Amino acid sequence: MDGGAVGQVVESRCSELEPGDIVVHGHGWREYSVVTEKDARKVQPIAGLPLSVYLGALGMPGLTAYAGLLDVAEFVPGDAVFVSGAAGAVGSLVGQIARLKGASRVIGSAGSSRKVDFLINTLGFDAAFDYKQGPVAEQLAEVAPEGIDVYFDNVGAEHLEAAIGAMRTHGRIALCGMIASYNETEPPAAPRNLMVLIGRRITMRGMLAVDHQNRMPDLIRDVGDWLRDGSLIFQETVIEGLPNMPQAFLDMLAGGNVGKMIVRL
Amino acid sequence: MDGGAVGQVVESRCSELEPGDIVVHGHGWREYSVVTEKDARKVQPIAGLPLSVYLGALGMPGLTAYAGLLDVAEFVPGDAVFVSGAAGAVGSLVGQIARLKGASRVIGSAGSSRKVDFLINTLGFDAAFDYKQGPVAEQLAEVAPEGIDVYFDNVGAEHLEAAIGAMRTHGRIALCGMIASYNETEPPAAPRNLMVLIGRRITMRGMLAVDHQNRMPDLIRDVGDWLRDGSLIFQETVIEGLPNMPQAFLDMLAGGNVGKMIVRL
Repeated sequence: MDGGAVGQVVESRCSELEPGDIVVHGHGWREYSVVTEKDARKVQPIAGLPLSVYLGALGMPGLTAYAGLLDVAEFVPGDAVFVSGAAGAVGSLVGQIARLKGASRVIGSAGSSRKVDFLINTLGFDAAFDYKQGPVAEQLAEVAPEGIDVYFDNVGAEHLEAAIGAMRTHGRIALCGMIASYNETEPPAAPRNLMVLIGRRITMRGMLAVDHQNRMPDLIRDVGDWLRDGSLIFQETVIEGLPNMPQAFLDMLAGGNVGKMIVRL
Repeated sequence: MDGGAVGQVVESRCSELEPGDIVVHGHGWREYSVVTEKDARKVQPIAGLPLSVYLGALGMPGLTAYAGLLDVAEFVPGDAVFVSGAAGAVGSLVGQIARLKGASRVIGSAGSSRKVDFLINTLGFDAAFDYKQGPVAEQLAEVAPEGIDVYFDNVGAEHLEAAIGAMRTHGRIALCGMIASYNETEPPAAPRNLMVLIGRRITMRGMLAVDHQNRMPDLIRDVGDWLRDGSLIFQETVIEGLPNMPQAFLDMLAGGNVGKMIVRL
């Protein structure tokens, strides 16, 4: 697996880039790389923020959250929004973007009381719950008694069924990940209440960030502004060195991190 | 249950309607009804077609098929379209509208060899299969080896899972009915392959005709023209008299009819 990478130009033979420039590229985890002009995207450092923000809030996770919420789930101000995996790289941005764009209510689920605390007290979610502490449908009904308009799904399975059950008429679901199923050898437990989609005219749409590159300038503008003025919190878990990466990747899948996971070389 | 009704005005106290006019209303199965002006929609008889066409191809089933295909499933010319329950009131229209609007391929499933023959030889489907003769996924793969862009779902369950598996990137699914589950006491067997929706960026959307009244003029124009010039076939199963209705309704759910079921009083 190759992650995205951010680094500094040390030597350049192209006119657009010079030594010292910061670029993002897709050549993966390595200390040095020869990249062509079209494979490197020059970015501007933001005072007070690590360059790795371009791998998180201003990178693919940011684009996934931004386009997923605004375009795929067709968020409009006033919507009540629920996001699963809410303490993760994408989920933590979805919730904050929803809040900053005028959601009536932002709800998140995560896998520990520490993460739930982080969502409410650091990221400004209106409510959050630990999905390991009881059935998702029951916990969701408690914090969203009037239902939800948007569900941003990073988890699938039981979460998806609960969200469908809580959806209001004309609700919208962005399918971004189904982490509950990645390690399963059997087909995942699917939502058994798909018939609800008909009566409530719900839209469910799968997404990949690659389809939404056109939104990158909007992301850089909106989320960049929010990062600078402190209204959006950018969180990352940093791993030192490639040898620690495989275990860290497994930890990430098991829920061991908050925010974007970064490998520092 | 109240069905839609078409009838003739015998007495009128409103300026817009006079005796002899044909109207459609939602007051259900009865010989006479007092309807207000706003509850009655005047329609024009079409030479050679029974008035009941306004309960079928030019009524709710027509609107469901028309708006479901064009708006909900966002059909574009060149799409390969699969419809289940294809010999039914809605399905038979979906397939024909897709053909007439420029589908690259129209495929239907139905529950008997008689219906399959009807789809191919009367309605002009490119291919059709009897879902009782083998797994839906296998039969669909045989007639759609290059996949499908649109699935119009009247059935749910195994059909939905098979259709998701056959979907191309950016495919669209209109959820209109889940007849496979209506008589089940257990939650329906849901598609186990929802994760496919993410990688292929598929949209799945529930629908009710009531949201699409704005399309009624387009339906009357397009489908009306096709009915007049014979390029679209309108089929109905007529039941004589209310006493025969309950059994006929059960027969319909069990797959006993082709096209729209009409009760004649």
